[in-house]
Amino acid sequence: MSDSYADGRVATIRDVAAKAGVSVGTASKALNGRGQLKAATRARVAAAAQELGFRPNDLARGLLAGRTFTVGLITSDSFGRFSIPVLLGAEDALSAGQVSVFMADTRDDPIRERHHLQRLLARRVDGIIVTGRRIEPRPSIGHDLPVPVVYAMLQSADPNDVSVIPDDAGGGELAVQHLLATGRTSIGHITGPDSFLAARQRADGASKVLTAKGLEFAGGSVLFGEWTEQWGRQGADILLRSAPDVDAIFCGSDQIARGVAETLRERGRRIPDDVALIGFDNWAPMAEGCRPPLTTVDMNLYELGQVAGRHLLDAIEGQLTHGLHTLPCRLVLRESTGPA
Amino acid sequence: MSDSYADGRVATIRDVAAKAGVSVGTASKALNGRGQLKAATRARVAAAAQELGFRPNDLARGLLAGRTFTVGLITSDSFGRFSIPVLLGAEDALSAGQVSVFMADTRDDPIRERHHLQRLLARRVDGIIVTGRRIEPRPSIGHDLPVPVVYAMLQSADPNDVSVIPDDAGGGELAVQHLLATGRTSIGHITGPDSFLAARQRADGASKVLTAKGLEFAGGSVLFGEWTEQWGRQGADILLRSAPDVDAIFCGSDQIARGVAETLRERGRRIPDDVALIGFDNWAPMAEGCRPPLTTVDMNLYELGQVAGRHLLDAIEGQLTHGLHTLPCRLVLRESTGPA
Repeated sequence: MSDSYADGRVATIRDVAAKAGVSVGTASKALNGRGQLKAATRARVAAAAQELGFRPNDLARGLLAGRTFTVGLITSDSFGRFSIPVLLGAEDALSAGQVSVFMADTRDDPIRERHHLQRLLARRVDGIIVTGRRIEPRPSIGHDLPVPVVYAMLQSADPNDVSVIPDDAGGGELAVQHLLATGRTSIGHITGPDSFLAARQRADGASKVLTAKGLEFAGGSVLFGEWTEQWGRQGADILLRSAPDVDAIFCGSDQIARGVAETLRERGRRIPDDVALIGFDNWAPMAEGCRPPLTTVDMNLYELGQVAGRHLLDAIEGQLTHGLHTLPCRLVLRESTGPA
Repeated sequence: MSDSYADGRVATIRDVAAKAGVSVGTASKALNGRGQLKAATRARVAAAAQELGFRPNDLARGLLAGRTFTVGLITSDSFGRFSIPVLLGAEDALSAGQVSVFMADTRDDPIRERHHLQRLLARRVDGIIVTGRRIEPRPSIGHDLPVPVVYAMLQSADPNDVSVIPDDAGGGELAVQHLLATGRTSIGHITGPDSFLAARQRADGASKVLTAKGLEFAGGSVLFGEWTEQWGRQGADILLRSAPDVDAIFCGSDQIARGVAETLRERGRRIPDDVALIGFDNWAPMAEGCRPPLTTVDMNLYELGQVAGRHLLDAIEGQLTHGLHTLPCRLVLRESTGPA
């Protein structure tokens, strides 16, 4: 994940281009003796290559020569609010490599996905990023494809595929650690459907931190429901009945937290004085529009998109990194949490 | 970036066929638009022809072969919730024409926009769609470009450019007509900044309908402010002070309406019994999460994207349609409006 090669990794054409202050395309032309380049440019690239120990072998040269400098981005969530920052991060990472991005939205339809994949392969893209809605690890989009594939924000069921996902369990840990640090001890958890891996992992992370302190969830268990405000309102009702002494609620999404905030206010519970509230997503319109503004867990999806883009560029250049990569979440503090 | 024929010889139909992995007959059919071929095959041949710089002699065939069947989509609003449906509509319309879409996000930065434009032109896209945030008619992205451009959801300042936008004034009319039909007569309007053309046009449409009935806005004038829930809460406070008898509020966005709903509830005004409430955008998480769920104006952005895509396909085929095209909005009825 490091951008430097001090860690011992082999220098790539991108490193050479960066060092020579030219585009990857120019560096490639210079090293392959193609194109119309100034002699000085060619010399600068050659010097950079030598300094970095870059050795284009025949295979690498062949790979490079066959490149179209395009990448396909297949998404299954109709460019929803989660995939947007992922797309932007990926676009920035790929753009640095002079790569343009074809977008293709599947509308969550496997037939359309297959059609998009075929069309992208027919266009000879250099690689593919798959992103979209998350429920469970999704089936691999294909084996033995002629180009590398990276899954961003969602996980391929094939452990050999490269997947970059947020550390949902870690996000749950962050939230509960913060609530404990502010002196809360009766902490409830209201979240989405337990069919969502992300919901289960956030709950697991929260539970782990509570257990280490000899605590359990207020009300005795996690309240799984829907990803809606309405469920937040209902869930808060249920929790206030089963655990009237609750002094903090961690929610699996900002939307759920909005519903919880409304019920708390109607029941005369002050936020954060009586009950601290944390959401998940850091979805600005929801979190900032909340009264009071919402402390929440941010999945760093832009950075995740960048990392996915860089993994894909590396893979295109022959440096495959198999398996699952999880990136840490971060806590965004606003007014809905604070000392009891 | 072409990967062969660096020796300068001209590519032939046989080269195209070989590169596409098809017979010469199939390549010819594909390039002439004849015969029964799979879309993927046709696209592969077109891509091969483009990559090799293959140019059949005949002018008509030349036009066809010169096409890359790619389009650039430049957006300035970081794929926000408004441009998403536009993108999906455009993608569907273009996909029907076997066209793939390069996405390029400017982050609202003119330098980045220029860079994206240059790169897309260098890739020989067949056309460009420009979309993004709307404040005022935006400067034309360029004159004398080698490919047609269509502006979607935003308006080019150059009246010769093709722009497809929602009928914001008509949306304002729809909202107030509905409120009048349910027997409301004291109708206030709380909206975004008056620097936004869309805010002014929605207000104008609303005003026109009121004036025709001999009415004016409750409180005497439009309340311009911000596109936020917080402004909705403040604006409702102001309006309830200046027009305590208000029986309906039309809001310039669903977010503003959410804030208004909260203040109304706190002041003991029932929605819709005492005060009817209408938003704008039909942004599902906001409108459906509202209590009660929000009647709102939908700009039909998916259809708008389709229309923009079809205009671009027509322009690529030589059928230019200059000027501004406005598409009607529609009212989505939920529980926040009803008889007084």
